[in-house]
Parts: sequence; C-alpha cells; structure tokens
Amino acid sequence: MTSPTWLYENFEPSGSAIGFRITRKLDEVQSPFQKIEVFESTDWGNVMLIDGAMMVTTRDNFLYHEMMSHPALFTHPDPKQVVIIGGGDCGTLREVLRHPGVERAVQCDIDEQVTRMSEKHFPELCESNGDPRAEVLFDDGIAYMANCAPGSLDVVIVDATDPVGPAVGLFNKAFFESCFRALKDDGILVQQSESPLVLLDLIRDMRAEMGKAGFDSFQTLPFPQPCYPSGWWSCTLARKGGRGFDFREADAAAKVFETKYYSAGIHAAAQVMPPFMAEALG
Amino acid sequence: MTSPTWLYENFEPSGSAIGFRITRKLDEVQSPFQKIEVFESTDWGNVMLIDGAMMVTTRDNFLYHEMMSHPALFTHPDPKQVVIIGGGDCGTLREVLRHPGVERAVQCDIDEQVTRMSEKHFPELCESNGDPRAEVLFDDGIAYMANCAPGSLDVVIVDATDPVGPAVGLFNKAFFESCFRALKDDGILVQQSESPLVLLDLIRDMRAEMGKAGFDSFQTLPFPQPCYPSGWWSCTLARKGGRGFDFREADAAAKVFETKYYSAGIHAAAQVMPPFMAEALG
Repeated sequence: MTSPTWLYENFEPSGSAIGFRITRKLDEVQSPFQKIEVFESTDWGNVMLIDGAMMVTTRDNFLYHEMMSHPALFTHPDPKQVVIIGGGDCGTLREVLRHPGVERAVQCDIDEQVTRMSEKHFPELCESNGDPRAEVLFDDGIAYMANCAPGSLDVVIVDATDPVGPAVGLFNKAFFESCFRALKDDGILVQQSESPLVLLDLIRDMRAEMGKAGFDSFQTLPFPQPCYPSGWWSCTLARKGGRGFDFREADAAAKVFETKYYSAGIHAAAQVMPPFMAEALG
Repeated sequence: MTSPTWLYENFEPSGSAIGFRITRKLDEVQSPFQKIEVFESTDWGNVMLIDGAMMVTTRDNFLYHEMMSHPALFTHPDPKQVVIIGGGDCGTLREVLRHPGVERAVQCDIDEQVTRMSEKHFPELCESNGDPRAEVLFDDGIAYMANCAPGSLDVVIVDATDPVGPAVGLFNKAFFESCFRALKDDGILVQQSESPLVLLDLIRDMRAEMGKAGFDSFQTLPFPQPCYPSGWWSCTLARKGGRGFDFREADAAAKVFETKYYSAGIHAAAQVMPPFMAEALG
C-alpha cells in the first residue's frame, strides 16, 4: 500500500490546473495516437488521462455525458440516426441509447485503445456497447463524416479531446461542412466547447466556423465538470434552417430513464447565459 | 524575471486540487489568526490564499461575490440593514452596497489583515469601503451576532472560509440561533456552503443546524467558481416564517447596476436543482 499522491493537469491555455489524490496507476498504453493512462483515486473512482489531460473520472463523468447527449436529443423532434465522433470511452453512446426512439448510434473514435481502456476501467460506461442499435467503429472521424451519405443523420455529437493533437481537425470549417452535409434539414450538431469562463474566444471562433459551414443557429450550454480546467465546461449546439432551440420539454420531463444531472429544468436553466457570456458571444 | 511555476491547493476533504500558474509572491503576512499570501498569476490576476487555501482571484471573484449578495437582496422585499460576517476582502460589501435601498451594511471580519491585503492587491473590491453606509469592523463575528439587537436586521451574509480554523463556529446551531434572533421576521440568512458536487453532506448538515435554530425554508444555489475545489460552489439561503424564495424578478431584471454573472435569469436558473442534489437534500 503506497501512500496517496497528487496528480495534476496543468492546462497551459488557461493558466489553471486540476488535480486528484491518487493511490496508484492501474494501466498505461501508448497507442499510435496518444498515451492513455488510468489511475485509481481516493475520492473520484478511476481517472483516465490522455496525453496528460484529465478525460474521465468515475465520479463526475455523468455531468459531461448527460449534457453532451440529452439536450440535443430532446431538442431534435425525433432523433433516429445519431453519430458520435470521438467518444471512445463510450459514455456518450450509453446516454444516446437511453432514448428509445434512436434506431442507430454510430461511435467513431480514431483510437481503439481508448475504448479498450474504458471497457477495463469504466465498464459501466460501456454497458450499452452490445446494444443492437450500437455500432462501434475505430476510424478517422473526419473521413467518416466526409463520406457520410448527405442528409442521412439527425444528430452528430463531436465528443473530442481538446483542439490540439488528433482532435484539431474537428474544430474547423471543413469538418463542420461535412457535418452540415450529412445532417438532415432539421439536424443538430453538438460539439464539446471547452470552458466558457476561460476560453470564450474559442467558443466564439468555433461558432463562426460553424456559421461558415452553413449552420445558422447556435446555443452554448454550460455545465459543471470538476475534472476539466476551471471546473465549468460547455457544449455548443448548431442547427440548420433557422429552427432555433425550443426543446421537447414535456418529453424531457417525462423521460423513461434516470439521469443524475440532466432534467427538463436543468436544460431550460442552461439556456440562460450569464451577462459576461452573452456579451462575448453576441 | 523568474519563470512561472504552478501553485496548488490540495483540498483534502474532496481529494481534488486546484492550481494556478503564478509568476511571483507579492505579499505575505502571518496575522494572529492565519497566514495570508498574495501571488501574481499569469492569467487570473492576483490570487489570495489563507492558510494555503485559494480565497480570491482578480479574474473569477465576481462569481462568488455576486451570488453571495444579489440573490438574497432580490429575495428580501426591501433590504435596508445588512450584516456581513467574514467577507474581509470587501467584495461582498461592494456588491451589497450596489443596492440603493440598503441603508447600512456592516462587515465584521475577525482578521483586519485580510482587508489590508485586499486594499493593497484587490483595490477594486474595496472601492465601496468609504461609502457612508458601510461600517467595516474587525471583530469576532460570533460575538457580534450574539450581541446584535433582536429583530434588527434584514439580511445576514456569512462570507466565511471553510468550516475549519477560525470559521468553524460559523456553521453550527448556536451561531445560527444568533442570526435567527437578530433577523427581522422576514429576514434572510445566507451562508457560503461549499461544493454541491463533493460536500453535499455538509450542506445537508448545515441546513439541519439552521432548521434547529428556527429557520424553516432553505434554498441552495449553485454557481461556478474556478478557484474553489471542484470548480462548482454554492450559497445556501435560510428564511423565517414559511416565506419561501420567490424573488423580486422584475426588480432584478431592471436593476440599476452592472453584473457579470448575476441576472434575473441566472437567479431563476440557479433555483433548479439537478436530480442528484434534489435527492440528497430532499
């Protein structure tokens, strides 16, 4: 039994750090794309890092996974065909498949090792991988979206790492154009969009790139996320055809599955931008 | 010019840490009560620590100070007499005094050195200290509340450090009884109540102690706060006489001062508890 030590992620773009008290390293693999490590912590369950950046903890991942999936799926009138780009830990896939109306959910992560590590150390996130509606691919998400049949998807969720390394190509106009083309006329794109407290410029730039790709409505929803820099994170929804973001509030309130953070009330509350965000995002 | 280093607070109760990239130590004083340090950071302005715990940064203190003051002051029908226990950095006092109806705001912090350090390194937080309605005392807040005239106050704000060290007596029944006695019949007590993600037990216990002291309605409002453990924090309001927490929404929407985080919409949104909080707090 070694005594606990502290493991930190120093996030250079924000000049702030996040850390957890850990007891031991459970696993490590260097994939062709990145280094993946899993530690056991004293209070947060297991912690997965990719290239030194905190990705998932057992305790707090529900916040991110619920907010990356349910707001979009309860905004779309009838989501049947869903694609997740990235998302290799499979937590977003699990949440998407909680919606009985979803007929097919494809998860396309470039790095198979993320999923293998998640299966071992976060098995609860992978419990829907065997669902007959699920398709788990290990491939280049940029190419996958470029090759998707036009007008074939209801929701695309980009559950990627920070916009550096393998994920950098998931934050620009060319990729968003592929998403725009693949989505049906009432389709919704969701992208994880970093901390609204420290990276508002990135969110503004990302929305601008989405706009150049043809999307005309944007909604950035903040939520708490202790394992990511600043502890406050966001997803950004983009939509075609001037449809806006009224959501199926009655359906959300009557949903047939349990959630820990998401609710119809939280969905509505997350739509309220504090003045500093409203000013920066216009 | 030294190169930047990383300064961390390891928060033992949550097993998580917060850190900032700092360039130099600006000041340090050992008061009779605690050690106060101020550092210059690369991205967060100045950072004040008390006994190694992050207290205030130039960049993110607006979140805490706005949420410790405006929800309570816009819930009370006509707050005139306000007492702040703790709050030595003077940021809460400044926010309270933005309300034109406030006739007197007393700040009672046990440690004068906190205010002296704030005057030097966070002068913007102290810009209302000379307001004729402000009274800045350096005294024991527990004794101050015990000696307050019964039924003399509209709002009491407990802006204290964590419930260890000098602040431990600010989280129990005896102190809450003093607050209850000092408040008028429609008075409101506000207490900073730590992270709802990691210390829900503390919030539940604190609400129970407030209940034993006579308060019968409670409201815990979460908000983001990067410099505190988990990045998600809360204040808890307690009220007498079964009045609940409807707030003066029209007044809040028409307020005559600027805020960066607080708004009528954010106030309403913060009242929505996510399912995991609602379950724990009942």
